[in-house]
Amino acid sequence: MIGFSNGVYHSVSEISIPITSISINRGYGAFEFFGIVKGRAFYGDRHLNRLRRSMQILRLKTNYDEQLEEIVEAVITKNQLSDAYLKLFVLPHDTAATDHRQASLYVYPTQMPLFDSLLYEEGGRLVTKNFQRFLPEAKSTNYLAGQYWMDEQNDSRVVDVLYHNGHSVQETSRGNVFIVKDGTVITPAENVLNGVTRGLILECLSKNGILHAEAEVSLALLYSADEVFLSSTTKHILPITQIDGRNIGSGKPGRLTREMIRVFQQLKDSY
Amino acid sequence: MIGFSNGVYHSVSEISIPITSISINRGYGAFEFFGIVKGRAFYGDRHLNRLRRSMQILRLKTNYDEQLEEIVEAVITKNQLSDAYLKLFVLPHDTAATDHRQASLYVYPTQMPLFDSLLYEEGGRLVTKNFQRFLPEAKSTNYLAGQYWMDEQNDSRVVDVLYHNGHSVQETSRGNVFIVKDGTVITPAENVLNGVTRGLILECLSKNGILHAEAEVSLALLYSADEVFLSSTTKHILPITQIDGRNIGSGKPGRLTREMIRVFQQLKDSY
Repeated sequence: MIGFSNGVYHSVSEISIPITSISINRGYGAFEFFGIVKGRAFYGDRHLNRLRRSMQILRLKTNYDEQLEEIVEAVITKNQLSDAYLKLFVLPHDTAATDHRQASLYVYPTQMPLFDSLLYEEGGRLVTKNFQRFLPEAKSTNYLAGQYWMDEQNDSRVVDVLYHNGHSVQETSRGNVFIVKDGTVITPAENVLNGVTRGLILECLSKNGILHAEAEVSLALLYSADEVFLSSTTKHILPITQIDGRNIGSGKPGRLTREMIRVFQQLKDSY
Repeated sequence: MIGFSNGVYHSVSEISIPITSISINRGYGAFEFFGIVKGRAFYGDRHLNRLRRSMQILRLKTNYDEQLEEIVEAVITKNQLSDAYLKLFVLPHDTAATDHRQASLYVYPTQMPLFDSLLYEEGGRLVTKNFQRFLPEAKSTNYLAGQYWMDEQNDSRVVDVLYHNGHSVQETSRGNVFIVKDGTVITPAENVLNGVTRGLILECLSKNGILHAEAEVSLALLYSADEVFLSSTTKHILPITQIDGRNIGSGKPGRLTREMIRVFQQLKDSY
């Protein structure tokens, strides 16, 4: 596999970061991740614009800020990627910073294990934790908490950790959450990453005339929801049927969730 | 400079981490940092035991867990270090984890800029932020928030960011905080890193018969303190004379702070 290492195309196994880099020493960096579908970046424009937004929030700039699209195309072409994923990192190496911190750009392909189809049929599970990501509107490399808590799970059906602030829920460690209550789909609006899949789902809901809102979701509303589902780049739409050991609704994927999975699959098939 | 890279001694400039490492992708790693004084690690045993504790909390293990002391000695000897600092990192590279995550050990020397002596005479400043480090008893590479907020400061006398939870203060991004009120020295007890300098100060206070306590420090108590000082490996004891733009006590380093600076200097001189 060939990756882009701040100006040079290399074998991914040869791309490395100096041990003295503050991306390692201080856990400082912007991150982006998206799918390649039939050789094209799936809503790549939205992902690259979000990366630019994350860089702005994290006060990072690279020498390639205007060429992200070309570099992504080059990595797809050089690897003849058809169905895969790309990871993008914007990593500062020096401590010195003025208005913006000079950083290096890395882009490389990766494969993800397919999620067990049983999870889509039977539903996945979440555990909740009181936690707030720092600068939630930026996608950063700051994932220690999420990784730590996922390592603790010994139930293979637990797919992610859902963060709350003691009264309302925000997002999972790697995705957004949606609930369905009395026919309305609701997703938290504040202190969440502006997920690309989240945005696509909101557009699908509008097009299909399904009532929906971006609004606060209390823990009480979460537990008493008729349906819950998760959205992310890798999971697309994944039904959630148990949270903190409690069944959601009937304990089976709900009608609206299944409909949204079908609609999203059409969106992907027609891309 | 020569560093240790998980079994091999290399020029530090040649030590690097694969871009695919979860130490970069997920900001996952344990960190330790200490001074070399007259060729010896200053309370190196305490720092290495704290690294072992951080590794335990972060569920990391290396092939060198029993040889940390020897490796530190070897890095000091190979570089003929007299007065310097060492950085130690324990970085996992793979996502896969069972009970503990296999990680690599890196040890390398570094120099730190001397703090302006004026700061010790006139006092430094702090700004406070509502923030809690994840797993505060572990020293991890999870420093994004502290680095981000320090980048925002355009007052060179602001030396660190002090974290609070809305009512009580815990620690700074890179050190511990002490206040003096009516002759008693108080430092927060919970949700703080067990600072080596903090521990040495508590021992000095005991030996010198100065009243002290490890206890909750409310924001109100902080602002109304007679004296405030900061402790860290690089700053030792630094008087704080302004917090969030408000003067502390007389706005000058206090009597007990100056006495502790003198006592700590003796400890270092006699090491």
